[in-house]
Amino acid sequence: MYQERISRVLAAMERMGLEQMLVSDPDSIWYLTGYDVFPFERLYAFYLRKDGQHKLFLNKLFPVPEAPYEQVWFSDTDDYLAILANAVDGEKDMGVDKDWPARFLLPLMAHNPSCKYVLASDCVDDARACKDAVERDLMREASRINDVVMERAAAYMKEGMTEREVADYIVAQYAAEGCDSTAFLPIVSYGAHAADPHHEADQTRLKAGDCIVIDMGCRKNRYCSDMTRTFFCRAADPKYAAIHDLVREANELAESMLRPGVPLCDLDKAARDHISAAGYGEYFTHRLGHFIGQTEHEKGDVSATNTTLAKPGMIFSIEPGVYLPGEFGVRVEDLVLVTEDGCEILNHVDKHWKTVG
Amino acid sequence: MYQERISRVLAAMERMGLEQMLVSDPDSIWYLTGYDVFPFERLYAFYLRKDGQHKLFLNKLFPVPEAPYEQVWFSDTDDYLAILANAVDGEKDMGVDKDWPARFLLPLMAHNPSCKYVLASDCVDDARACKDAVERDLMREASRINDVVMERAAAYMKEGMTEREVADYIVAQYAAEGCDSTAFLPIVSYGAHAADPHHEADQTRLKAGDCIVIDMGCRKNRYCSDMTRTFFCRAADPKYAAIHDLVREANELAESMLRPGVPLCDLDKAARDHISAAGYGEYFTHRLGHFIGQTEHEKGDVSATNTTLAKPGMIFSIEPGVYLPGEFGVRVEDLVLVTEDGCEILNHVDKHWKTVG
Repeated sequence: MYQERISRVLAAMERMGLEQMLVSDPDSIWYLTGYDVFPFERLYAFYLRKDGQHKLFLNKLFPVPEAPYEQVWFSDTDDYLAILANAVDGEKDMGVDKDWPARFLLPLMAHNPSCKYVLASDCVDDARACKDAVERDLMREASRINDVVMERAAAYMKEGMTEREVADYIVAQYAAEGCDSTAFLPIVSYGAHAADPHHEADQTRLKAGDCIVIDMGCRKNRYCSDMTRTFFCRAADPKYAAIHDLVREANELAESMLRPGVPLCDLDKAARDHISAAGYGEYFTHRLGHFIGQTEHEKGDVSATNTTLAKPGMIFSIEPGVYLPGEFGVRVEDLVLVTEDGCEILNHVDKHWKTVG
Repeated sequence: MYQERISRVLAAMERMGLEQMLVSDPDSIWYLTGYDVFPFERLYAFYLRKDGQHKLFLNKLFPVPEAPYEQVWFSDTDDYLAILANAVDGEKDMGVDKDWPARFLLPLMAHNPSCKYVLASDCVDDARACKDAVERDLMREASRINDVVMERAAAYMKEGMTEREVADYIVAQYAAEGCDSTAFLPIVSYGAHAADPHHEADQTRLKAGDCIVIDMGCRKNRYCSDMTRTFFCRAADPKYAAIHDLVREANELAESMLRPGVPLCDLDKAARDHISAAGYGEYFTHRLGHFIGQTEHEKGDVSATNTTLAKPGMIFSIEPGVYLPGEFGVRVEDLVLVTEDGCEILNHVDKHWKTVG
């Protein structure tokens, strides 16, 4: 499995004309090697070479098992950037992945100044974007738990409860289901708070008539889920209920179009046009979706500018929303998996608005 | 307060010969402006200029209040790196902070190729390392809660309990004390697990005779605590108890030496020499301490190679340890604040070993 994944990355490097690359994202290194190290602020890199002489650069604080490639160890007090600079080819172009920080990149550039540095994250990230069979099952399981916990949260919410209480309940339910953690802190937004797509749950209490946006996801066996549903407390204002239906239709429209070969920007356009036709386009203030896997936001999005074609194995969110500042917000979000001939929706919680509390 | 902090950064930039710098760390931007934005993978930067014409680069997704400097807004679909490149001085040296990722740095270099890029993180990080009066109080409060919860955890642990149960208890106690979150997931390590300084709490159950390393910290009003104590379940093996005493003495020795002007490496050496004299030097496998503030690991450490002199306001950990692979581990850790004439130890939980369970 790891050899297959590494081969896909090497093939992408070859298409970019690269013979060497430094991969630093711990999730990418896990994906390519099975090594599960979180290095905090320390240097940690998997060095991929066209000739197969890969090397892993590791702080002695983080022991790992033997591997079929060289391990280069250092301690906090070594000049680890000199060790790294000397162990790579200082003349040929060097690929680096997207999150490699300036504190490593600028000194490496100074050590090996004749080397040209190239942003080559896509070589790894595009491989990770298309989930293999093992990963698809893990993603299905994380979303299955998310469905279960969303249903429980809907049954749990009562008038007078704070946003924070609901968010804490969701976190506890994930723990009870054996999750590693949340994928991100649950967003629980009442009424006008829902107009901020990233509102942080606070001590505000639920009132009759409030909309309730719940955007939540768990992490189970390293893979993430992410779903949003919008409810109303006791009763829905007809205007807001109609906006909810509009957003739900935009979600369903985009999902119905999804199959291999569809440009991702076409999905964004279809959902946005549907909302715009009803006069709410300016209030749909973000892209339609984002990729997801080991982290809740991975490389890739579903936006007006992403002309990438859908490919089997891709998993991303479809999450149109409408946000009326100071007043109200709604979002309807599923995760979808592109299959050989269409798409599999990973969430199964009903998408029609309903009242709670 | 913010103007005072910005002035300290500008003075440090001037000493490096820099007239402009991009600060990207959200915690640093909060420190300098009060803006609390977590941008996920999106561009977010505070551009500091010697002439005071600072600018904040912001995605429209993250609204912030008015400020006394220019705000440059962009959306996900804009060419925000071109916007940034055009808004800065493309000829003069540009400072960047340490975590700025390759996905922004390499394209900016391509946009403005005649500009020289300089790792200038210390200008901000050294300012943040010396806490002002407001920050000192926040750090004291986070450590006060950590003391309370450590005492509760010691009383809570019983033979047969899993590491995960103890870790969950600590997390729940932090929540009950009104913390924002943990500073990091609590480390609870029994027996041979304690030989791995970063062991993740699992389903292992506590047995009589086990050592128990608890390394924990909370985040309250944005500032972090971090403390380690080692216990024994029911009874301590005399050999292990003696190693614990040795490590405690190393901790106390280093703390007793701390005052302004002391090179941080001297603290590491004193603690390490004490442990080495008893024959365990090779098992003290990490540096003596790390700086801490808004995050649990901030720039700066207490290590053999850091010749920085202690200055009033610095807060860092003193955490010697001994790790016998496959067998046993112990660590004793406090946070310390350098005062005008000595140091204030922020933790007050007794450091002698004791039995629990």
